[in-house]
Amino acid sequence: MKDYIQYNDWSIVEEGFHAEDNRISESIFSIGNGRMGGRGNFEETYTGDSMLGNYVAGVYYPDKTRVGWWKNGYPEYFAKVLNATNWIGIGVKIEGEELDLHTAKVLEFRRELNMQKGYLHRTFKAELPSGKVVSVDAKRFLSIVDDECGAIRYSVKAENFSGKIEFRPFIDGDIANEDSNYDEKFWNEVAVAAGDDEAYVVLETKKTFFHVATGMKWAVSLNGTPQSPSAEGKTKEKYAENIFSLDVTEGDEVVFDKFACNVSSENHKKEDLLEWAKTHVGKAFDKGFEKMLAEQAEAWAEKWEWSDISIDGDVAAQQGIRFNIFQLNQTYTGRDDRLNIGPKGFTGEKYGGVTYWDTEAYCVPFYLCTADPEVTRKLLVYRYKHLEKAIENAEKLGFENGAALYPMVTINGEECHNEWEITFEEIHRNGAIAYAIYNYIRHTEDKAYLAEYGLEVLLGITRFWTQRVNWSENLNKYVMLGVTGPNEFDNNVDNNWYTSYIAMWCLKYTAESLEWVKENNPARFDEIVAKTNLDVKGETEKWAHIRENMYLGYDEERGIFLQADGFLNKEQILVKDLDPKFLPIVHNWSWDRILRSNFIKQADVLQGIYMFEEDFDLETVKRNYDFYEPRTVHESSLSPCVHNIIAALIGDEERAYSFYLRTSRLDLDDYNEDTKDGLHITSMAGTWMSVVEGFGGKRIVDGELVFKPMLPSNWTSYSFKIQFKGSLLRLSVFADKVELENLSDKETTVKIYGEEVTVPAQSKSEVKR
Amino acid sequence: MKDYIQYNDWSIVEEGFHAEDNRISESIFSIGNGRMGGRGNFEETYTGDSMLGNYVAGVYYPDKTRVGWWKNGYPEYFAKVLNATNWIGIGVKIEGEELDLHTAKVLEFRRELNMQKGYLHRTFKAELPSGKVVSVDAKRFLSIVDDECGAIRYSVKAENFSGKIEFRPFIDGDIANEDSNYDEKFWNEVAVAAGDDEAYVVLETKKTFFHVATGMKWAVSLNGTPQSPSAEGKTKEKYAENIFSLDVTEGDEVVFDKFACNVSSENHKKEDLLEWAKTHVGKAFDKGFEKMLAEQAEAWAEKWEWSDISIDGDVAAQQGIRFNIFQLNQTYTGRDDRLNIGPKGFTGEKYGGVTYWDTEAYCVPFYLCTADPEVTRKLLVYRYKHLEKAIENAEKLGFENGAALYPMVTINGEECHNEWEITFEEIHRNGAIAYAIYNYIRHTEDKAYLAEYGLEVLLGITRFWTQRVNWSENLNKYVMLGVTGPNEFDNNVDNNWYTSYIAMWCLKYTAESLEWVKENNPARFDEIVAKTNLDVKGETEKWAHIRENMYLGYDEERGIFLQADGFLNKEQILVKDLDPKFLPIVHNWSWDRILRSNFIKQADVLQGIYMFEEDFDLETVKRNYDFYEPRTVHESSLSPCVHNIIAALIGDEERAYSFYLRTSRLDLDDYNEDTKDGLHITSMAGTWMSVVEGFGGKRIVDGELVFKPMLPSNWTSYSFKIQFKGSLLRLSVFADKVELENLSDKETTVKIYGEEVTVPAQSKSEVKR
Repeated sequence: MKDYIQYNDWSIVEEGFHAEDNRISESIFSIGNGRMGGRGNFEETYTGDSMLGNYVAGVYYPDKTRVGWWKNGYPEYFAKVLNATNWIGIGVKIEGEELDLHTAKVLEFRRELNMQKGYLHRTFKAELPSGKVVSVDAKRFLSIVDDECGAIRYSVKAENFSGKIEFRPFIDGDIANEDSNYDEKFWNEVAVAAGDDEAYVVLETKKTFFHVATGMKWAVSLNGTPQSPSAEGKTKEKYAENIFSLDVTEGDEVVFDKFACNVSSENHKKEDLLEWAKTHVGKAFDKGFEKMLAEQAEAWAEKWEWSDISIDGDVAAQQGIRFNIFQLNQTYTGRDDRLNIGPKGFTGEKYGGVTYWDTEAYCVPFYLCTADPEVTRKLLVYRYKHLEKAIENAEKLGFENGAALYPMVTINGEECHNEWEITFEEIHRNGAIAYAIYNYIRHTEDKAYLAEYGLEVLLGITRFWTQRVNWSENLNKYVMLGVTGPNEFDNNVDNNWYTSYIAMWCLKYTAESLEWVKENNPARFDEIVAKTNLDVKGETEKWAHIRENMYLGYDEERGIFLQADGFLNKEQILVKDLDPKFLPIVHNWSWDRILRSNFIKQADVLQGIYMFEEDFDLETVKRNYDFYEPRTVHESSLSPCVHNIIAALIGDEERAYSFYLRTSRLDLDDYNEDTKDGLHITSMAGTWMSVVEGFGGKRIVDGELVFKPMLPSNWTSYSFKIQFKGSLLRLSVFADKVELENLSDKETTVKIYGEEVTVPAQSKSEVKR
Repeated sequence: MKDYIQYNDWSIVEEGFHAEDNRISESIFSIGNGRMGGRGNFEETYTGDSMLGNYVAGVYYPDKTRVGWWKNGYPEYFAKVLNATNWIGIGVKIEGEELDLHTAKVLEFRRELNMQKGYLHRTFKAELPSGKVVSVDAKRFLSIVDDECGAIRYSVKAENFSGKIEFRPFIDGDIANEDSNYDEKFWNEVAVAAGDDEAYVVLETKKTFFHVATGMKWAVSLNGTPQSPSAEGKTKEKYAENIFSLDVTEGDEVVFDKFACNVSSENHKKEDLLEWAKTHVGKAFDKGFEKMLAEQAEAWAEKWEWSDISIDGDVAAQQGIRFNIFQLNQTYTGRDDRLNIGPKGFTGEKYGGVTYWDTEAYCVPFYLCTADPEVTRKLLVYRYKHLEKAIENAEKLGFENGAALYPMVTINGEECHNEWEITFEEIHRNGAIAYAIYNYIRHTEDKAYLAEYGLEVLLGITRFWTQRVNWSENLNKYVMLGVTGPNEFDNNVDNNWYTSYIAMWCLKYTAESLEWVKENNPARFDEIVAKTNLDVKGETEKWAHIRENMYLGYDEERGIFLQADGFLNKEQILVKDLDPKFLPIVHNWSWDRILRSNFIKQADVLQGIYMFEEDFDLETVKRNYDFYEPRTVHESSLSPCVHNIIAALIGDEERAYSFYLRTSRLDLDDYNEDTKDGLHITSMAGTWMSVVEGFGGKRIVDGELVFKPMLPSNWTSYSFKIQFKGSLLRLSVFADKVELENLSDKETTVKIYGEEVTVPAQSKSEVKR
């Protein structure tokens, strides 16, 4: 736990320099624009502890798989997003002495992540070893208006000296990943160039041959007067810089603006890349820092218009939720269906920028309600584009006839993970991908998506389930053997209830979707049948037979669904009775001990109950919650949100709030002591879910939006916005009332506490609490 | 499958050079003497495909563990036996032209492993590119009389030329392991020296700091007349050689004798090592090649006196069984309780010379019957010496109070393997280690071993089991969750019958052993109680409670023991109904598919039935065999022998013989296409078991030796020797009779076909068939 971040409604603020926590701060102060991003590294030289990180979305390298004991079906290589060219660097020398906060005496220091306007702001005053004192004011952002550009304004004031200040703006592509499996560097140089006030580095990734061109251009002024110092351009391998200096007098302020761009062969022809970089960085330069920053603030204002949550009476909670929303919007903007949301976004190397089921299970609900439907649609199309690879992946494991197993971890559709118990067995991810299609359509009514893309994905997934179950003569049922559920603290279990339940649901939803496409788009239906070689009657009958005869574990005595066969044979111990010295068990127990225990990593049966709540009565929900939650150690950042939502549902406000606390400031307070590696981006969507679906009680029931809001006791009020079938609504929850504002031009009806509330366009209604 | 090895009763013969199979031959023609060994590499230069291999027992290196995804409890390092100094090298140049069978035309070639006398013999005639023809006759052995020495006689005949022959005898320690995880070399140089007719290399292993000194000394004669050519000694890093040449005339024969020794800091002081090497190699030199070879033949004759099996009427079977016995005796001689039997012995790098439960389950039965009891005792003491490490290993996994978990794979007592499903879960190995103590005592009546060493080991193992089970409220029984049985094709299963059964047996045998020591050696009993902090009453009562309330899966309908919970829920398919294209499944199926299938890698329930046969009636054995065998793919070399023994027991002679065929010539015929990596040394003991316990029906029942021999239909007769409680017996099985010869000075009674047969000392009896 850390507590050096200052509470503030709209900003993340560090007062005073916490050098020992610098890696944590670098994660927290990360900035991104969906196309690229990077950690909160310093522009000037810093020789203290730091993890340099700049990432370009979609540009990956297939690192050689590292494995102790090979199993058939493991990927030979797996993709990781690369640490890319460092574009922010500005070396500063004062009379030949390098400005470096590690060697200087830091007299004042403040950094602020301005979430409202979308920039990073750092000010400091430092005394160099020689005694010279400078004040620096540095603003930096990655534009979400032109998402290939970034800009920095870096001003230096000579506080107590006169002399020469040398600036050394550079771009450095000689970069390695800390997590490289074989200590390789992943980039080759294509070109480097340095002019008088500009420089370029064009690199190529090894093996994947992505090209990325990074350009910079700069301007400098002294006490407000533009300067044209004579600058020297220099290059070395994968590196280019300009060097110039200005003579200053005590009290002078030099303002240095650096404009940069990253353009990649994902979006431009390789041969044009250097030209594109020049043009792009030139445009940014022409626009100027002030104008770019103003556009940035405007664009962020619009994002907040859709997605803000305000909380009154609890500034820590307010800051936490805005931080989470801000980071989600920095990570994915929905402009490119080849991109997705890595668990650490652009804030670290861990999990290498890859896609997990987190996207469908946690992020989709967020983007569905807070962004244009196109944003979520892009996330779905991402999986559609990987369908062929998912079919190949299933074939590697012995499945046939178009069965698709989506990878547990991927960038390009290929599997990027190799623990057999996860890669081959944690197959429920397929279910979440199908569920996201359903979720998208019930929020947007865009059923046409089924015909265009959805049905093919559903078919591949359903064919997988159909082959993955086997008929057990012994039980006279279909069983699903050898799986790992969301609770990764048990492996190779039989009949994991969640996996089997979502598989059955997939069979049903695929059958319904097939029917819908047949009726509503017969031409496309025929096309799909032909393309997939679908035996409509035979296969749908098989699906029905499986659904009707699927084994689902149930314990009569306790009235609970059985997480997996044999779960009740384990020694039953509650987390509260476990010696806290063993927590987290993932660090303190050997794997066999974890597996043998009844301790659950994250929602498993409860994940299913959360997703299919309408199938169960409240008593059933309660019995399962009361059984499983006390056995859950929540050692995944994705765990507390689901428990928050269910606790809220069954009226356990106290526990609902305590789960919320575990998720909302996870990174700001470094709750799991791993913020230094990067932020938990996908679990941030879980925090949003906690407020909207947990406290707000937002559900869709029979196609209708319903709310059952509760108000945490230490909050005065809160409000969130939600987009649903073309309406934009703001729900505000006060102690005595719930207010619903319809911000759209369409009359809308929702249910609040079971009561129908119709709100005309652009007006408000309220319901008593 | 390969069939280039010639059938021969006492030798392994390759006629003609099979360059494409050279790695296979190098494995098959390996020689060793328990202290060191090496592959059948050529003395002269060979630039074709080859795997150089020389190994010194007990000298290991802790290679950094390579792992994809770390789990708590994995070893950071694991020991592997190193590829050591190449002592056999003799470079030969004919008029400046290197003799190399890869570049020469091979006119004649024969190699023979003379198993009766224990040496490797190679003859060839080769035409060099220049047209010069030489004949070479090379004999090599590693002495089992002086097990630090080896000798080579290498004679070269000038067939069609006169000129200069240069000899370059060398010792080369600049050696790497092909299986090094991080491409490191593992040796540092301590010293090198080269005199006129001798040379020395002293090396140190990195990290473990073992020292090994290798020395050579040589003599040469021309047409029978000793020569004293002036030789040049040269050294480079980790390498020393002598170079000299002789002028020969067409028809001349040069006979070059090279004597070498390997002495290690395991047996000598480091500072004396070079002196030891000099003295040792000097003694060998003084003794001379002929005398050393004669001693070798004598020593091997004695080994065969104890352990030979003769088979009449089937030369392939005869050769197979002798090859297996020969290799076992080359690998372990029982002189050193710090050594053990690696699955590949001294014949390859794979499994790095480490110890598995193979030793206790397969090799102990062999050595018990065919060697001095001291040999097996050394193998037991090996585990006693690792008890502390086994306790530490269990502590790493969270066990307490002196519980011991022996490693799955080890050299020095530390775990050397890191797949969680094996390392942490394949815990039945503990049972085999306890069983070997029991097996040793029932063969030797050396009950004193219990007091001296055995009981402490049994206590550690039993304490492990006691903590490893848990009470299941649900079943009202103790259960054993999360294990991997001998069938490694299912992982993390609950209540593996074999594991639970052997655990229960351990509890019983430990209690009985404790009682025996208490009665027979009260002083030692008190000592052990104090040393182990044993709560005699409390702990033994706990053991009894577990034994009485242990859950063992049983299927009433089929009358079979359940391999593990849920086994019958799998789709039940017999191997005969599986498309052969999928075999071996370990190469053709993904791991999840293997796990979900009902296919069994090797005897699991049947392993338990084999070990505890006396607990079950024949019908029970038959039902379990008939259920499990048809589901078994025998994808472990340890599988067929146990099935052979049970098939023979239930009178299924045909299947018994077919299993024998799968095991006896496994390496000679390269059955699994992996002989190139080395021989399957430990499974060779299984072949011996097949003959003696399978066909011979050897058992110990109520302390008495019994036989129920069968005769495979294509054998005329067979005979084997057996040592039991101080008697040495030869059992010969003919079509019409079984003959028992008592080779010892002690009257002995055994049961043959249920009939008591008493044979006076040094005489014979027979029983009709």
